[in-house]
Amino acid sequence: MKIAVNTGGGDAPGLNAAIRAATVAALKQGWEVYGIRNGYGSLFTDDPLVKLTHEKVHGITMLGGTFLGSANRGNPFEMPVKQSDGSVKAVDRSDELVKRMKDLGIEALVAIGGDGSMIIANKLSKKGIPVVGVPKTIDNDIVGCEITLGFDTACSIATEAIDRISTTAESHQRVMIVEVMGRYAGWIALHSGLAASADIILIPEIPFSLDSVCNKIKQIQSFGREHAIVVVAEGAKEKGKSHFVKGKAVGQAEQLGGLAEYLEKKIAEQTGKETRSVVLGHQQRGGSPSAFDRLISLRFGTEAIRALAEKDFNKMIVMQQNELRRIPLNEVAGSYRAVHLDCDTVMTARDLGKSLGD
Amino acid sequence: MKIAVNTGGGDAPGLNAAIRAATVAALKQGWEVYGIRNGYGSLFTDDPLVKLTHEKVHGITMLGGTFLGSANRGNPFEMPVKQSDGSVKAVDRSDELVKRMKDLGIEALVAIGGDGSMIIANKLSKKGIPVVGVPKTIDNDIVGCEITLGFDTACSIATEAIDRISTTAESHQRVMIVEVMGRYAGWIALHSGLAASADIILIPEIPFSLDSVCNKIKQIQSFGREHAIVVVAEGAKEKGKSHFVKGKAVGQAEQLGGLAEYLEKKIAEQTGKETRSVVLGHQQRGGSPSAFDRLISLRFGTEAIRALAEKDFNKMIVMQQNELRRIPLNEVAGSYRAVHLDCDTVMTARDLGKSLGD
Amino acid sequence: MKIAVNTGGGDAPGLNAAIRAATVAALKQGWEVYGIRNGYGSLFTDDPLVKLTHEKVHGITMLGGTFLGSANRGNPFEMPVKQSDGSVKAVDRSDELVKRMKDLGIEALVAIGGDGSMIIANKLSKKGIPVVGVPKTIDNDIVGCEITLGFDTACSIATEAIDRISTTAESHQRVMIVEVMGRYAGWIALHSGLAASADIILIPEIPFSLDSVCNKIKQIQSFGREHAIVVVAEGAKEKGKSHFVKGKAVGQAEQLGGLAEYLEKKIAEQTGKETRSVVLGHQQRGGSPSAFDRLISLRFGTEAIRALAEKDFNKMIVMQQNELRRIPLNEVAGSYRAVHLDCDTVMTARDLGKSLGD
Amino acid sequence: MKIAVNTGGGDAPGLNAAIRAATVAALKQGWEVYGIRNGYGSLFTDDPLVKLTHEKVHGITMLGGTFLGSANRGNPFEMPVKQSDGSVKAVDRSDELVKRMKDLGIEALVAIGGDGSMIIANKLSKKGIPVVGVPKTIDNDIVGCEITLGFDTACSIATEAIDRISTTAESHQRVMIVEVMGRYAGWIALHSGLAASADIILIPEIPFSLDSVCNKIKQIQSFGREHAIVVVAEGAKEKGKSHFVKGKAVGQAEQLGGLAEYLEKKIAEQTGKETRSVVLGHQQRGGSPSAFDRLISLRFGTEAIRALAEKDFNKMIVMQQNELRRIPLNEVAGSYRAVHLDCDTVMTARDLGKSLGD
Repeated sequence: MKIAVNTGGGDAPGLNAAIRAATVAALKQGWEVYGIRNGYGSLFTDDPLVKLTHEKVHGITMLGGTFLGSANRGNPFEMPVKQSDGSVKAVDRSDELVKRMKDLGIEALVAIGGDGSMIIANKLSKKGIPVVGVPKTIDNDIVGCEITLGFDTACSIATEAIDRISTTAESHQRVMIVEVMGRYAGWIALHSGLAASADIILIPEIPFSLDSVCNKIKQIQSFGREHAIVVVAEGAKEKGKSHFVKGKAVGQAEQLGGLAEYLEKKIAEQTGKETRSVVLGHQQRGGSPSAFDRLISLRFGTEAIRALAEKDFNKMIVMQQNELRRIPLNEVAGSYRAVHLDCDTVMTARDLGKSLGD
Repeated sequence: MKIAVNTGGGDAPGLNAAIRAATVAALKQGWEVYGIRNGYGSLFTDDPLVKLTHEKVHGITMLGGTFLGSANRGNPFEMPVKQSDGSVKAVDRSDELVKRMKDLGIEALVAIGGDGSMIIANKLSKKGIPVVGVPKTIDNDIVGCEITLGFDTACSIATEAIDRISTTAESHQRVMIVEVMGRYAGWIALHSGLAASADIILIPEIPFSLDSVCNKIKQIQSFGREHAIVVVAEGAKEKGKSHFVKGKAVGQAEQLGGLAEYLEKKIAEQTGKETRSVVLGHQQRGGSPSAFDRLISLRFGTEAIRALAEKDFNKMIVMQQNELRRIPLNEVAGSYRAVHLDCDTVMTARDLGKSLGD
Repeated sequence: MKIAVNTGGGDAPGLNAAIRAATVAALKQGWEVYGIRNGYGSLFTDDPLVKLTHEKVHGITMLGGTFLGSANRGNPFEMPVKQSDGSVKAVDRSDELVKRMKDLGIEALVAIGGDGSMIIANKLSKKGIPVVGVPKTIDNDIVGCEITLGFDTACSIATEAIDRISTTAESHQRVMIVEVMGRYAGWIALHSGLAASADIILIPEIPFSLDSVCNKIKQIQSFGREHAIVVVAEGAKEKGKSHFVKGKAVGQAEQLGGLAEYLEKKIAEQTGKETRSVVLGHQQRGGSPSAFDRLISLRFGTEAIRALAEKDFNKMIVMQQNELRRIPLNEVAGSYRAVHLDCDTVMTARDLGKSLGD
Repeated sequence: MKIAVNTGGGDAPGLNAAIRAATVAALKQGWEVYGIRNGYGSLFTDDPLVKLTHEKVHGITMLGGTFLGSANRGNPFEMPVKQSDGSVKAVDRSDELVKRMKDLGIEALVAIGGDGSMIIANKLSKKGIPVVGVPKTIDNDIVGCEITLGFDTACSIATEAIDRISTTAESHQRVMIVEVMGRYAGWIALHSGLAASADIILIPEIPFSLDSVCNKIKQIQSFGREHAIVVVAEGAKEKGKSHFVKGKAVGQAEQLGGLAEYLEKKIAEQTGKETRSVVLGHQQRGGSPSAFDRLISLRFGTEAIRALAEKDFNKMIVMQQNELRRIPLNEVAGSYRAVHLDCDTVMTARDLGKSLGD
C-alpha cells in the first residue's frame, strides 16, 4: 500500500513525533509512505510529495513544528484562486485534488490536524479517499478528545512563564496579567492558571465582570498580599459586551488595543495597583514537545496505521476515558469542546479560592 | 473540624501542591488543618504538628519534596523500638498512635503516600480514624490508579536525560544504557524510553534475554546506525535468572555490581561495541513538579477534602477513565499495577520497532 | 557591626542569591544583618527592617525575585510626597533617611540594584553612609561592568523562546518578530539573537532601515528559505525617526502601537510574507536564576562583604577582564554601557551573515 | 581556499554551533569547507569528507553532540593497528595523514577539541598543515582558557540535578552525595556546588579528609538541619591515599566500587545519617547547549576563520580577560588548568561556610 501523511493547521508540539510514528509503523506493514509538503495545496504543484523513510524521520520526535510544513491555505474545498481582475476567490478544487492523489497512487491518507483539518478529512473521505485523522491542537478543544497533541507542552510553557512573571509581581507588589492561548475554550488558562497558582483565571466559558476581578484583587490585598496574578484566555469575554474577539478589540472598541492591555488599564484604574500585562503568544505552540506530548503523538500516530491496516477508515483517533479509541470523522465537525463548568478542575479552582471572574 | 495531613514514603514531585490544596480547601470549609512533621513517628514526640495556614502554604505548589518531611520510619504498626540489649525491634504502636491523635483533637486524616502509606491508612481507618488517601509514587504502580502524582515529572526528567545522553551516543557511536526507576513496574522506562526514542526498553513485566538485546543492537548496526540507546527499569529481570533485585546484584552475583553495569559489560562483550551506562537515580524523584503533576496534585488534594466533607471516609482518591473517583482503601493493599502486555503503549513500542528484550 | 541590605529597581534573577551571600558572609564576620523591606521608602515607616539569619536566607539562592521586595518609589532624593492640593511632588528626604538609618544603628549598606540604585548609593555615601554597591540589571548595560546579575538568565529565557517561535516560523513559512528587553543597549537582543540563530538583529546602538531589513528577508527567500526570524530590542530605533521610545509609539505616531507590531505590519507590506510578532516582556526578568547568575550573585554578594570588612567603602563590585574588582561608585552614574560596534560579538554576527539592520 | 573541520575527543555541548560558525564564516570568505567524519582516522578510508554548506549546517546550533562524529581512535600519531598476531599496536601514521590531507586538497584545518586534540593539532601544524584550534571540554581545564565550550551547559545540568536531589534530601533528612565530572580539575563541582547551595564541595585540587567532611555534616546537624548535600568531582582524592583514579577504585581497593559509593558508606558509618549517592555521568556532556555555550561556540568558530583568513596559523582561540585572543598551540600541551586555591570563587565558597574537605 502507498499512503500519504498530511499536517494541517496551526503548529503544535508533537507533529513530528506523530509523523515519525505513522511512518515507522507503516513501513513495518511493508507500505510506502509519502509526506505532503506544506499542506494539500502543494498537490497542485509538480513536486508535492517527500518519500518518508527511516532515515528521513530519524531523530525528529523531539523537534518542534512539522518538517512537512503546514501552509495556511491548505483547504482544497476553498482554495484561494486569483481571478482575472486580480481579486482572490475561494474555489472548490477537491475533485481535482482527489484525482491528483489517485494519479499519484495514494491509497490512503493520515490527516494530522485540528478541527478544520478534520472537517476537510471527513469531506475527502466522502469523495473516496480512505482517511484516518489524528487530532492536534494546543487548545485541547476538539470534540470527542480528552487530550490533543500539543496541549501538555503549551500548558507547561505557559506555567513556566507565569511562574517567572509571579516572582516579578511579588518583588514589585504588582498585579500581573498573563494572556494565554484559547480562542474558544479555556483549557490552557485553567490548567496553567491552577498549576502556576494564579489568583484569577478568565476563560471563554465564563464571561467575567471587571468588578468581580477587581474585588478579588482588593480582597487579596486586605489579607496582606500586595501582588496578584490574572491568567486570561485570549477568547475570554466581558459579561454583556462583545468588544473583543480572539483577544483583539473590534468595531468601535478598536482603540482599546488587546484584551490584556484593556484589563491592565481597567484593573489599574479600579484598584489603584501598579499593573502590567504580558501576551505569551506564539511561544506556546512551538518548540520541543514534552515527554507527555511525544508519547501521545507516538501512540496516536501508530494507532492511525493500525486503523488503516484494519481498514477501519474515516475515523479520528481519540483518547477517551484514558483509552485510545476511534470515532467517526463526521462526529467532529463544527463545534468545540468547552470546559464543563461543573468538572472537577473548575471545582478545584473554586475550592482553592480562585476567582473565575463570575 | 480539625484535620491532619501526613506525607509518607519516598519523595515525589507534587507532594507540596497536594498539601497546599488540602489545606486551602479545608480552610475554606472552616476547618483547622495541621501537618504531621516527618511522618507518624513524630506523634510520639512533644511537638508533632505544624498549623497549616494560607501563609504557611503560599508559594509551595512549585516546590519539590514535602515541606512536612517524610521520615522512613513512619509505620506505627511496625515502629522500630530499641530494646534493652541494644537491638531494634518492630513494635505495633498503632493503638497509642490513635489515642495520641484523638488527644490532639484530630478528627480526620488526609494521608498522602504510596502503597505502604495506603496500607497504613487503611489499618488506621479500621481503628477509628476517618481517613482519605491521596496516592503518590513516581513509579505509577499503585493499584486502581491510572496516574499517580510524581509520575509525569519523573518521566520528563528521565526523557530529558536520555535526550542528552543520546547526542553523546551518536557523536561517539556508542551503546548507552540508562537505568531509570521502577522496581516492580516499567512505567517510567516504557514512557520515557518511547518519548526519548530509545531502541531497547527493558521492564520488570517482560524478562529480557541478553541475546535478544544484543541482536537488536547488531540489527541496528546492520542498517548503518552505529549507536543505540537501552533504557532499563531498575526492576528488570533477565530470563530464568534472579541475580538482580531492584537493580542491585544479590547472592553469589554480588560482584556483578548493579544491573546497568552488568548490561554494559555483557553488551560490550557480545556486540564489540563501545558501551557506557548511567544510573539516573534520585534526581527522578525531586525538584519542581511539572505543570501536569501540579494540577493532578491540586485536584487530588481538594477532592480529598470534598470526600471528608461528604463523610465519604476510608477511600483513596484515584483517576480512573480520566475521572476523579474514590475507591475503598482496602482495595489498594499488597499488590502493584503492572504494565499490561497488550496495552496500546506496548503495541506502540512494538509498532515503532523497539525491542522489549523478549 | 550592623549592616543593612537593600534591593532596588527592576526585578532580576539572582537578587535573592546576592542577598543570601551578603547575609551569610556578614554573619561569618560576626556582624548583624538587616534587610530593608521594599526599598528605602520603607525606612520612613515603623517597621522597615527584617533581621536576616541563616534560617531566613536558607534555600533562596534558586528563587527568582527579591524576597525583600523592590518598590518603585525607593529614591530618597525624590520621594513622592502628596501635597495639600492632592498633587504629588518629588521631595528630597535623604537627610531624614540618613538620620533614620543612623537611629536604627545601621553602620553600612549593601546596595543591590541597577544604574539608578548606584546613583542613589553614591549620593548616600557622600552623606556619610558607608556603602558597597552590587550591580544588577538584565540589560547588562551598567558602566564598568562586563556582566551584571540577571543578564545570563534573561538571555537564556529569550533564547529558549526564540527557539520555540522558530519552529513555528519554519512550519508556517512565516517571518516572526520577537521583541526582547533592552531600552538603551542591545545586549539581550544580540546574544539571544545569535544563540537562537536569528536572521536579523536590531539593537539601539545601530539604527535600522526598513529597506535593509526587508531586503535581507527577500535575500533569504531567494536562497530558498521561506521563514525568517527578527529579534529586536525594545529600544531599537529606525534611522532618522524617533517615533518609538522604549518600544512604544509616541507623539503623532501613537496609533502605530508597539515597535514589534509596527515592524510586523511594515515587513508584511514590503515583503508580502505572512508575518507575526511576539513581545516577550516581563518573563525575561523573573524566575529561577541560571547556574551562571547564581554563581555571579554569590561572588558579588560575598565580595561586597569583603569590601566592607576591608573598609573599602563607596565602591561598586564589578567583573572586569573576568576578575572581581571594585570601582568608585561615582564612576557609574548617568551613562550606559552600549554594545561596541567593533566588538567580536558584532563581528561574529556579521561573519554569520546576520543583518543588523544597517 | 579549501579547509577541513575536525571534532575530536569527548562530546561537549556547542560543537555543532562551532562547526556551523566556522562553516558559514568560511563560506562568506568564498572558501570551500569540508567536515572530517568521525575524526582523523576516517582519512584513511575512502569517503572521509562531508561537504559543508549552508543547508548542511542549518538549524544545528541548538543541537547537542557533533554531527560530524568524534571517534575515540582519532590520534594519527598513535593509530591502533591490528598486528598479524591479533594484538593491537599504536602506530604513527601522521605522515600518511598529512599526505592524504594534501591529496584531498585540504589547505587548512579547524581543529575543535580538548587538550588531546590540541596536542595533535600542534603536531600536525609542525608537519605543515596550517591549523587553528578551538578549545572544548566540559571540564574547563584547558591551559590558557578562561572558558571552554561545553562548560556552562555542564554546570547548568549539574546544578539542576543537585537542585532536584536537594529537595529529596530535605524531605527525607538525608545526606546526599552527587558525583559530577572533573577528572583533573574541580570547575564543575565548584561552580555547580555553589550554584546549587551544596554544603560540602570536594575537588581534585584540595585533597579531602573524611573527618573534615563528617564534622561538617555533624555541625550542620547541631544547627538543627537534618540534611546535607555533598558535591564531589570524580577526580577528588582522599588525603594521603590513592585508592581512586577518576572516580573508580583501583588496585587493592577495587572492592570499594566508585568514589561516590565509598563516600556514601563512610559518611553513613561516621555520622549515623541515612546517606545516598548519585553519579551524574554522561548526561552532563550531551544535549542542547545553553545560550551561553552557543554564543561562545559561535564566537570561537568565526574567530578561527578570521585567524585563518589573516594567515595567523597554529594558534588556539581562547577567551582571556573576557576577550577573544589567539595563543600559540604549543603552549597548550600536556598540562591542565586547575582551580586556583586563592581565586575569588574559592573565597566565595569559604565565606558562605562551605566545607572544601580540607
